[in-house]
Amino acid sequence: MATQKCIVKSRPEVGGLSFEDREIPKPGIGEILIRNRATAICGTDSHIYNWDAWSQRRVQLPRIIGHEFAGDVVEVGPGVRHIKVGDFVTGEGHITCGFCRNCRMGQGHVCESWKGIGYDIDGCFREYLCHPEANTVINDKNLDPRVAAIQDPLGNAIHVVFAADCVANRVAVFGLGPVGMLAVAVLKAISAAEIFAVGRKNPYRLDMARRLGAHHVIASNDVDVVQYIKDHTDGKGVDVVLEISGNPKAVQDGLKSLRMGGDLVLIGTSNESSTIDLAGDVVFRSTRIHGVTGRKLWDTWYKMKGLLASGNLDVEPIITHTLPFAEYEKGFALMNSGNCGKVVLTF
Amino acid sequence: MATQKCIVKSRPEVGGLSFEDREIPKPGIGEILIRNRATAICGTDSHIYNWDAWSQRRVQLPRIIGHEFAGDVVEVGPGVRHIKVGDFVTGEGHITCGFCRNCRMGQGHVCESWKGIGYDIDGCFREYLCHPEANTVINDKNLDPRVAAIQDPLGNAIHVVFAADCVANRVAVFGLGPVGMLAVAVLKAISAAEIFAVGRKNPYRLDMARRLGAHHVIASNDVDVVQYIKDHTDGKGVDVVLEISGNPKAVQDGLKSLRMGGDLVLIGTSNESSTIDLAGDVVFRSTRIHGVTGRKLWDTWYKMKGLLASGNLDVEPIITHTLPFAEYEKGFALMNSGNCGKVVLTF
Amino acid sequence: MATQKCIVKSRPEVGGLSFEDREIPKPGIGEILIRNRATAICGTDSHIYNWDAWSQRRVQLPRIIGHEFAGDVVEVGPGVRHIKVGDFVTGEGHITCGFCRNCRMGQGHVCESWKGIGYDIDGCFREYLCHPEANTVINDKNLDPRVAAIQDPLGNAIHVVFAADCVANRVAVFGLGPVGMLAVAVLKAISAAEIFAVGRKNPYRLDMARRLGAHHVIASNDVDVVQYIKDHTDGKGVDVVLEISGNPKAVQDGLKSLRMGGDLVLIGTSNESSTIDLAGDVVFRSTRIHGVTGRKLWDTWYKMKGLLASGNLDVEPIITHTLPFAEYEKGFALMNSGNCGKVVLTF
Amino acid sequence: MATQKCIVKSRPEVGGLSFEDREIPKPGIGEILIRNRATAICGTDSHIYNWDAWSQRRVQLPRIIGHEFAGDVVEVGPGVRHIKVGDFVTGEGHITCGFCRNCRMGQGHVCESWKGIGYDIDGCFREYLCHPEANTVINDKNLDPRVAAIQDPLGNAIHVVFAADCVANRVAVFGLGPVGMLAVAVLKAISAAEIFAVGRKNPYRLDMARRLGAHHVIASNDVDVVQYIKDHTDGKGVDVVLEISGNPKAVQDGLKSLRMGGDLVLIGTSNESSTIDLAGDVVFRSTRIHGVTGRKLWDTWYKMKGLLASGNLDVEPIITHTLPFAEYEKGFALMNSGNCGKVVLTF
Repeated sequence: MATQKCIVKSRPEVGGLSFEDREIPKPGIGEILIRNRATAICGTDSHIYNWDAWSQRRVQLPRIIGHEFAGDVVEVGPGVRHIKVGDFVTGEGHITCGFCRNCRMGQGHVCESWKGIGYDIDGCFREYLCHPEANTVINDKNLDPRVAAIQDPLGNAIHVVFAADCVANRVAVFGLGPVGMLAVAVLKAISAAEIFAVGRKNPYRLDMARRLGAHHVIASNDVDVVQYIKDHTDGKGVDVVLEISGNPKAVQDGLKSLRMGGDLVLIGTSNESSTIDLAGDVVFRSTRIHGVTGRKLWDTWYKMKGLLASGNLDVEPIITHTLPFAEYEKGFALMNSGNCGKVVLTF
Repeated sequence: MATQKCIVKSRPEVGGLSFEDREIPKPGIGEILIRNRATAICGTDSHIYNWDAWSQRRVQLPRIIGHEFAGDVVEVGPGVRHIKVGDFVTGEGHITCGFCRNCRMGQGHVCESWKGIGYDIDGCFREYLCHPEANTVINDKNLDPRVAAIQDPLGNAIHVVFAADCVANRVAVFGLGPVGMLAVAVLKAISAAEIFAVGRKNPYRLDMARRLGAHHVIASNDVDVVQYIKDHTDGKGVDVVLEISGNPKAVQDGLKSLRMGGDLVLIGTSNESSTIDLAGDVVFRSTRIHGVTGRKLWDTWYKMKGLLASGNLDVEPIITHTLPFAEYEKGFALMNSGNCGKVVLTF
Repeated sequence: MATQKCIVKSRPEVGGLSFEDREIPKPGIGEILIRNRATAICGTDSHIYNWDAWSQRRVQLPRIIGHEFAGDVVEVGPGVRHIKVGDFVTGEGHITCGFCRNCRMGQGHVCESWKGIGYDIDGCFREYLCHPEANTVINDKNLDPRVAAIQDPLGNAIHVVFAADCVANRVAVFGLGPVGMLAVAVLKAISAAEIFAVGRKNPYRLDMARRLGAHHVIASNDVDVVQYIKDHTDGKGVDVVLEISGNPKAVQDGLKSLRMGGDLVLIGTSNESSTIDLAGDVVFRSTRIHGVTGRKLWDTWYKMKGLLASGNLDVEPIITHTLPFAEYEKGFALMNSGNCGKVVLTF
Repeated sequence: MATQKCIVKSRPEVGGLSFEDREIPKPGIGEILIRNRATAICGTDSHIYNWDAWSQRRVQLPRIIGHEFAGDVVEVGPGVRHIKVGDFVTGEGHITCGFCRNCRMGQGHVCESWKGIGYDIDGCFREYLCHPEANTVINDKNLDPRVAAIQDPLGNAIHVVFAADCVANRVAVFGLGPVGMLAVAVLKAISAAEIFAVGRKNPYRLDMARRLGAHHVIASNDVDVVQYIKDHTDGKGVDVVLEISGNPKAVQDGLKSLRMGGDLVLIGTSNESSTIDLAGDVVFRSTRIHGVTGRKLWDTWYKMKGLLASGNLDVEPIITHTLPFAEYEKGFALMNSGNCGKVVLTF
């Protein structure tokens, strides 16, 4: 019986990971077996690592974590018709049913019965995993495996950016973690008129935002963000705000930073409810608010492929650390420090 | 000097109207002079009549009130190029600048410097008024003047309905005042799959909703609205909620009545802020919220013309009372009773 | 070995059908076995019956023909996850791969490798057939099986109507065969402002168009269609033309019947190339032309479900003849006569 | 009486220009008086210069030609409300009525009664001109006047690019004159996945396309364009073709270079009708064709402002020649040679 190493959240505590041997699975009907080349640590993995309230509610232990990956197909199960052994692939981490109305209407990111690998079911922090063909994309052969492995968060960023009309418009990004950084890079690639990058006073990340092309970089601790944005937009506000921080204050500031008729896109989440002046900030100003989660199947993925092909979108600077798979604890420490972009583990 | 009768809010109190003689104005550059044939009482007029908090803040006295009207053009000012004496017209009550980005991009309803006739400047509760050609539409000659006079609230209803994708979808309308009723009629005309009409336990209005074609009529006092909607949509919720009541509870119920990936359209307003579970009800469910105010210039107006032309949209049943202009006090009393649809005053 | 009766195009000639016994198939991976309740004759079946140029090029004999059907699921194959024995279903007759970019982007009607049942592979003119779960919809239990069986052409009509913006707009339908009739019914249901129905001088079908709600019914043999339409639209032309006849003259008339900035939707086809004044009729007039084929998977099908649920769309009058399955020759004769709407065969 | 120099097409022959003194006009109601800083020669001016069939049909002599310009406002007429003396402006060369349905619905480029300056009425090849405020945009003070003066053709290019979905998609540009070059630059700025630039074998322009960022540059004389595009897109074809050459063969090649479900955008025009296989190339392939003319008022202009602000769109390399206003004959000679991009005349 062939076995492999897996990163397992085995204990309900901060950290609580073990590096375990598990059997290499066999692909079932419609499944493929993938041998990973790279996998990346998501903020969600950090939540589970830090065993926060959401994790305690959602994740049953023991659980193989991780959901960002890229690898080679080494075996295909019965009924697999399109993917072949040898294909270089990445799996969409939300396993969708493919049959409910949302799936059939291009809204698989809100499939009525989706499950997330790495928290609802076992994930990808292991050398081999089975994945449904229907939830898999074939990558270009020459795509850097580290870039291929971060298509999940890059897809989040693309989903957020394309939820409103950002091309040639003025856009503020609130929250400069990895997804926020990727959003800045995407906005730059598609020619947002002006990019306002707003984050906490962390020089590492503010500098990175500037290098990625933000026209304005704002440390929210030091500056009245709404006033700054109004001052630099003839008093009108930006066309679009992308709220990626989950900070309730950022939602309120975001609404007040918008021009009349603007769009607020929300992907950041908080455990607290928000207090919103719907009449003053939404109705009378004709604001639209777009809740966003996951990636559109498959609109987001094809946009990603196209943007990477254009040569304009360079996400390499956001992959700040590459470590061997076994050194995952270093990766989680980096994530907790905040002084990193994406942290990738390679096999 | 020719004079005319005007309804003037002259005293800062409940009621506080006077019926005064005023000079008939002369049209300036780009203006037309209209002789009214019908005018209608809006909920906003009732707010001013009842001298509520919003009115006290917004309206300077004395003020000729009223903004819903239809009449004949009797004189045109210099620079008027398209409208001619004898045209039967209705004015958009939001006077927009026509030049700011929002105006130029079809979002005149959020013009950066719009003013509302009947509260910011003098309104239409008088026989003659001047109005900018650029804010006027020419009606079909054979349109009933009473219907022509309620195009402002019918336009609100159409703006709300077309803010999301209601054709062939399941839609709940929260709030069954005149705009809510008109929304039900519009939804029926364009074949919403199922219409859920939700209002307070007022038999007059619940009955009217049923007659206008609502598939489900729900008295919100008696029924758990969210549960009812879920029970009648396979547990999924409706595709779209139109929130026209302004009740903060209705906003929360509306969000919870939506399917994953649904749309909440807001035109109702409240003086209170709302508490919303953005993570649970908006982000993870990929909900869109659309603030709506006024009517789109001119998308809403052309849709209205087309819907009226189709023969499918019959708004006559919603015009429940027609009174002579001088009997306006009866009209305001009816509006306060809640036992009416639209109340029209004719000349 | 259980057998069933099948309608087989067995001889390369006009007619050339035989009524043969064939084995009842077993569902493979991802397939369901359906026992038909009703099936309908499409114009495409008539093409094959009449053995026209297209049929001779496309169809290999012997072939079980037919692609419009509705029935009950009596068995499910391995890997079927959503459809259950007892479900009342209709299959999309275009078997799509589900994996190519077009399929994954909601354009399955132009799947890169689709096959049509009833011409590329065996069809549904038989009591039992296997069909992929992924190409099947579950009908409401109480939907009339005859209506359920004509969702393919009704879907064509809906795809055509929603290819442009017809709600509240003026629309001309060129071609009054069954799909044209269904398009008129759909336009009426969604409140097209004015419907101009244009067809050859066939009283049976012109009368039907009038009863379905067309505002203008035009016999193209007798009337200058472009002039008529201009005369009834203030000289401007209609907003949208739906070209369903395939007549090259109708394409030219359609372009000239449009207002500046209008939309021409094409589903009718001809064996001849068309001569078009692209500069005069398309570029300078900013016309859009939309080629349409099949039905959108699954946007069209969900719109269909919603329109049928609304109660506004009544397609029963278009089902003019219902015959027992064995009397199919009568059905083909009716189709050739032109004095029918949809002809349904029941089991 | 103050006078100014004007370039007048005075004689019906090739060339036929005279450099005449004319009175400086006074602005009427709603008009502004502009003192030009730069003006550019359009292909349309060359048509008039060369006195081709279109010019002979459309232009009445004598006529002041030219329609691309930028200058300073030196006087405003009665009723002008938004533009002030000292503003740096560019006029939209299509004078639109602002009141017809198309104008009011954001389709002013197909205004029912537009007139083009420089051919229908006197144009901008003069130092001073009056222009309607309603057809004017205010430029950023620091915009290079030469760039400001070419916003008309840049706007054509932007209108074409945004007529279909080019961001992150594969796009072919047929025709590498100034508008084609500008389209390549815009496609590069918004991250088209791959840009195929197709033009006649003119090394000057093929080189320029390469420098502007085209991924593939194809000399249509030497290469089977359709085959080349299929070979470089896995046999599928590009998502979008922008046809800017007006060559009837290019329209046919363009249709055959598209993937199933693709978009053909047409701005090029020919005096000949085109022969199109509508069934094979449009209906069964579900192709959309978009006729495009002029610029959207004002969507195109705001996109232009935003793209220029982004810093990603550099059109300077396309302005290959700048000459003093009086040396206009040199400019027309350059235009006829084909060895130029945009030719600008400065005051």
